[in-house]
Amino acid sequence: MNLDSIFYPKSIAIIGASTEVGHVGNDIVKNLISQGYEGKIFPVNPKASELYNLKCYPYVLAIKEKVDLAIIVVPSSIVPTVLETVAKKKIRGVIIISAGFKEVGNIDLENQVKKICQKNNIALVGPNCLGIINPEIKMNASFANIMPPNGNIAFISQSGALCTAILDYAQKLDIGFSKFVSVGNKALLSEADLFEYLANDKKTKVVAMYVEELTNAPAIIAAAKKLTHGKNPKPIIAIKSGRTSDGAHASASHTGALAGNDSAYQGLFSQSGIIRAEMISELFEYLRIFTHNKLPKGDRVAIVTNAGGPGVLTTDEVILSGLKMAKISKETENKLRKVLPAYANFHNPIDVLGDAKADRYKAAIDILEKDKNVDSILVVLTPQSMTEFDLTAKAIISAKKKSSKPIVASFIGGKLVEKSVKTLRASGVSTFSFPEEAAKALDALTHFANIRKDKYNTKFNIKNTNKQAADKYFIEAKKRGQTIFPEADALPILRDYGFPLLHSEVAKTAAEAKNIAHKIGKSVVLKIVSQNILHKTDAGGVILNVSPDDAGTKFTEMIKNIKQKFPLAKIDGVLVMEMVKEKGVEMILGSVKDSGLGNTIMVGLGGTYVEIFKDVTFGLAPLTAYDAQKMINKLKSKKILDGARGQAVMDTQALIDCLGRLSQLLIDFPNIKELDINPLLVLPKGQGVKVLDARIVIE
Amino acid sequence: MNLDSIFYPKSIAIIGASTEVGHVGNDIVKNLISQGYEGKIFPVNPKASELYNLKCYPYVLAIKEKVDLAIIVVPSSIVPTVLETVAKKKIRGVIIISAGFKEVGNIDLENQVKKICQKNNIALVGPNCLGIINPEIKMNASFANIMPPNGNIAFISQSGALCTAILDYAQKLDIGFSKFVSVGNKALLSEADLFEYLANDKKTKVVAMYVEELTNAPAIIAAAKKLTHGKNPKPIIAIKSGRTSDGAHASASHTGALAGNDSAYQGLFSQSGIIRAEMISELFEYLRIFTHNKLPKGDRVAIVTNAGGPGVLTTDEVILSGLKMAKISKETENKLRKVLPAYANFHNPIDVLGDAKADRYKAAIDILEKDKNVDSILVVLTPQSMTEFDLTAKAIISAKKKSSKPIVASFIGGKLVEKSVKTLRASGVSTFSFPEEAAKALDALTHFANIRKDKYNTKFNIKNTNKQAADKYFIEAKKRGQTIFPEADALPILRDYGFPLLHSEVAKTAAEAKNIAHKIGKSVVLKIVSQNILHKTDAGGVILNVSPDDAGTKFTEMIKNIKQKFPLAKIDGVLVMEMVKEKGVEMILGSVKDSGLGNTIMVGLGGTYVEIFKDVTFGLAPLTAYDAQKMINKLKSKKILDGARGQAVMDTQALIDCLGRLSQLLIDFPNIKELDINPLLVLPKGQGVKVLDARIVIE
Repeated sequence: MNLDSIFYPKSIAIIGASTEVGHVGNDIVKNLISQGYEGKIFPVNPKASELYNLKCYPYVLAIKEKVDLAIIVVPSSIVPTVLETVAKKKIRGVIIISAGFKEVGNIDLENQVKKICQKNNIALVGPNCLGIINPEIKMNASFANIMPPNGNIAFISQSGALCTAILDYAQKLDIGFSKFVSVGNKALLSEADLFEYLANDKKTKVVAMYVEELTNAPAIIAAAKKLTHGKNPKPIIAIKSGRTSDGAHASASHTGALAGNDSAYQGLFSQSGIIRAEMISELFEYLRIFTHNKLPKGDRVAIVTNAGGPGVLTTDEVILSGLKMAKISKETENKLRKVLPAYANFHNPIDVLGDAKADRYKAAIDILEKDKNVDSILVVLTPQSMTEFDLTAKAIISAKKKSSKPIVASFIGGKLVEKSVKTLRASGVSTFSFPEEAAKALDALTHFANIRKDKYNTKFNIKNTNKQAADKYFIEAKKRGQTIFPEADALPILRDYGFPLLHSEVAKTAAEAKNIAHKIGKSVVLKIVSQNILHKTDAGGVILNVSPDDAGTKFTEMIKNIKQKFPLAKIDGVLVMEMVKEKGVEMILGSVKDSGLGNTIMVGLGGTYVEIFKDVTFGLAPLTAYDAQKMINKLKSKKILDGARGQAVMDTQALIDCLGRLSQLLIDFPNIKELDINPLLVLPKGQGVKVLDARIVIE
Repeated sequence: MNLDSIFYPKSIAIIGASTEVGHVGNDIVKNLISQGYEGKIFPVNPKASELYNLKCYPYVLAIKEKVDLAIIVVPSSIVPTVLETVAKKKIRGVIIISAGFKEVGNIDLENQVKKICQKNNIALVGPNCLGIINPEIKMNASFANIMPPNGNIAFISQSGALCTAILDYAQKLDIGFSKFVSVGNKALLSEADLFEYLANDKKTKVVAMYVEELTNAPAIIAAAKKLTHGKNPKPIIAIKSGRTSDGAHASASHTGALAGNDSAYQGLFSQSGIIRAEMISELFEYLRIFTHNKLPKGDRVAIVTNAGGPGVLTTDEVILSGLKMAKISKETENKLRKVLPAYANFHNPIDVLGDAKADRYKAAIDILEKDKNVDSILVVLTPQSMTEFDLTAKAIISAKKKSSKPIVASFIGGKLVEKSVKTLRASGVSTFSFPEEAAKALDALTHFANIRKDKYNTKFNIKNTNKQAADKYFIEAKKRGQTIFPEADALPILRDYGFPLLHSEVAKTAAEAKNIAHKIGKSVVLKIVSQNILHKTDAGGVILNVSPDDAGTKFTEMIKNIKQKFPLAKIDGVLVMEMVKEKGVEMILGSVKDSGLGNTIMVGLGGTYVEIFKDVTFGLAPLTAYDAQKMINKLKSKKILDGARGQAVMDTQALIDCLGRLSQLLIDFPNIKELDINPLLVLPKGQGVKVLDARIVIE
């Protein structure tokens, strides 16, 4: 969708323009005029003839000239009527400022608005938003009365209130914007649509967003990739609220218990290459570094400091951020020895000593910049009696201008460093109050350079899935009204999708149990089959290591015990399953459906203590093979799969294959609400995996 | 030690006072005079007759009047000679600014200085320091030319360079100090001595420190408790550098591999009630909140906001910090409904809506302040068109003055909120740029209130330890030159300290093995005994579940295999050990000696994957029973001990008892360098624990 009618209109009609000062419909007209918009402005108000020296129109069709954008500020109930006239006038862009839609429960009204826009090919921002600002053409089409400087950051916010705070704060920091959008209820245009537009917007180099809720993960992932993996990479930095409010689902499955609402977002951001800022302050630090630096080639940082203590502190932060301290070359060291005093520290962090003037900083930075082992440089300065603040700042600025490596600074102090910090910022050197912030921001920059290397389109090659069979199975279950599929019912579905299962059959009688066990021909496990019993082990519904001869008596024993403990449970039999003798690692695969984003996928360390160690990662269907590998790489238990403490290397490839099968199953059946495969036993390399237990719930 | 001669001298001699502007010996005299010190100043310089209108003395004994404090700025080599004259002059306080001691390898020179001071009962700060500042009496006895405002924070810094940066930054934030000390090499006075002094210093309410290395953990813990648990609680906030530089010890023991240098400090801070700030910015945030607020009664926070988005963000931060969102009472809700508009949010976070003026904020804060379910209040403000910045600030100030609960604020924005933020700060309301910082600081404040409740003096009541026997055993080992004690050699020591062991004996022959196994009378474990084999299991030196009859043949088999694999290993026999059949939880107990702090103690989840999950906590000997319980409480695996997923509750009390025994062993034998008890099998409640394997290394 082309959004030029919204961001670059040549003429704007304000429908609901008010003559009353302080009202939103008045603020918008005032902001457009006073902040320098040079296009035509048409206030629409049937009760007034003039507003701020502009002619007022009684209705939109009374405007004879062409109108590109309509800003609607009328009460929500008449918005559909107004929109019909907007459509007639062939206006292509609309911003609805008015509230009173979905956010207060008026879902039908919002759908009506959406339909009119869709039918008439109108691009719609809002409703219930603050408006938009395009500093490039000095257009403030919002009721926030701040015009930010022209810059290269596009900001998308789901909170109007936060917009004003951000604009105010950014102004203080002299941070400029290319576009500023308050998206409101996102009836039509969502973040994904804006990503598509911004990918081709020459003025935008960085996209920042404040998010409360997103929908349609696949669309977001696809649109985000266009920004992050295009020819001109544009990072997306997001701050997401509600990290804790939802909490974990109240759920009987392990996956459900572990999957808070936020884990789906963690998965989404990781998969789509969106960088997450945990806090507002972090967001600004990231914006500072991204707007002024090229991407580093690697993660090796050199520190230049005039004080030992802060040098060590900075080293800590560099390493804790996930970056590496550069090991400078012998050649660099020799060069440094020629220009720095004998007591200086010639190993990273480079200490130019407390009496260093600008010349030492300059010499050290220039030498380090040429070292191939150095990917970026962090300059730390503390105020000492000999310190040359402004000259050091200038030395950094000139080094930065010549270099393609990120060079950032942290001048620690207050009044003494104030002026030089302003000089640095004005000349495009990212500057941070403390080295810890610089290190974090450098890490985000480096992280984005790595994201760019993602082989995100490495597709899965999944064979032997039988959608038709599973479909039939689900349809039959639907007929019975079945939505919960305990182990015995879940295994056939997994079989249809090619998951490696153990030999198992359900026995209804002791004799059947013995027969099946003999057919299996080795020790078996007996597991109770009942939709009413959730935790089989806790209920005494699992007996391990039963010899085929004992299977009958053990069957009778188990049934008797369970009937005693759970007299009301409906028992459908006992699952007789082959017993695995091979040693392996118990992992868990799972899925929970997120109301907004879709089907999440979880992988992690399984078994009984899965909820205690919480060593799990999340992704969203559909996964690529690359995504699956990345999810596993993030696990602590990856080391176990890789063969910790001299133990066998496990079949991680087979685990990845299962993630692909699970992803395919969820694409084919998005109505799967919860799914647990726990444990999934991963055997030594070449021996594959085995599903030991499973459970599925559909909507 | 009374340090009044240092902090409140009536007269100061500057030995090495220089007439050369820009030199340290000149700066100090200039700072003393120009920044308002009202006592007597005696510059000592044999080559000058006058300095800044003060008479110069050729040597210190030439001063006829009494001198309380000497500041020494002469070259390090003549410092001892100078100190002897200082002693003769009966000067009780000395600050040695001069460098050139331990920090450049001159350890003997530093020891000499230390001895002269000790012998003559001189309190010594330094050498190699910046000096000290006491704003109360306008004494700047340092070469940093900033005089901070008078305040209630005592700052102790191990880095001189950081001092100037901190002073400069604090000045910008209008943060005042009661004492400012650059401790340098700490030849005599250390942080512990300063804690003792500051505990009785009426001007000091908060102690902040920057630390690179500490020594003597017991002294620090004892002194810290005097500050934190005295009648007037004074929090200690520390920032510690070198969190990553040391890395984990290169070590063969699990404890060694897990115990980086920093873990000892984690243990120290936790045990002594010192609050750790991870970063400089955090330190300042903590200082802001501690200087202006009383301690909250609990951890329940109420948020008042004029915007939904920031309200949710703040809620996230409150919960992620470890605090709780207050559940406001029905009564409070009813009161709020009377004063706020119908669309407001009456549940925490309380949203007074975007058009709120100061009156709504005032009403909401006053009502919440009276709710018994609210322990502290966080006020969030974003700039909206109706917002009354200054009046809202005033409402908060007046509420804060009347209340004993912490009330803090975050006005998010830039220029629009600048003035009101200054007003808040000037009136003692802690104010933060973003709610996330406010939440973290509130958590630190609440954490300190909890520390105050620590029953830190709950002593262990350890019986049945036999120091004499262990002593004899170690002495004999020393005679043999033995420093490594593998399992078979370590178990007797643990037996002497009352650790519950399994029945075990070392067999030298197959026949002996069989005999011992029959004596044990049930299945046994065979384990190779060799100082050369570190990981017994990996080496094939462990056979589980051997019946007494098979013990002989399995013995022969193991010896043969090991000899093949490790032809050079000296094999001392095979340990035949009772096999435990009971199900329990495998934990690990351990210790590593830290060069500075002393003997650390570790507890955590044991077994093979201990280094993968790293679910361990650290403390320092001596532990109290309370410390031991606290260490266990921090473990994720605590949930397993408590009986996760319907499993048995384990004997945590027996585990705590073992921590006490370990602590006692380390107090009695501080030369124990490394110790691993892994696994320590914790059995169900009432059944105690069993040592399954152990290893000790002495210095």
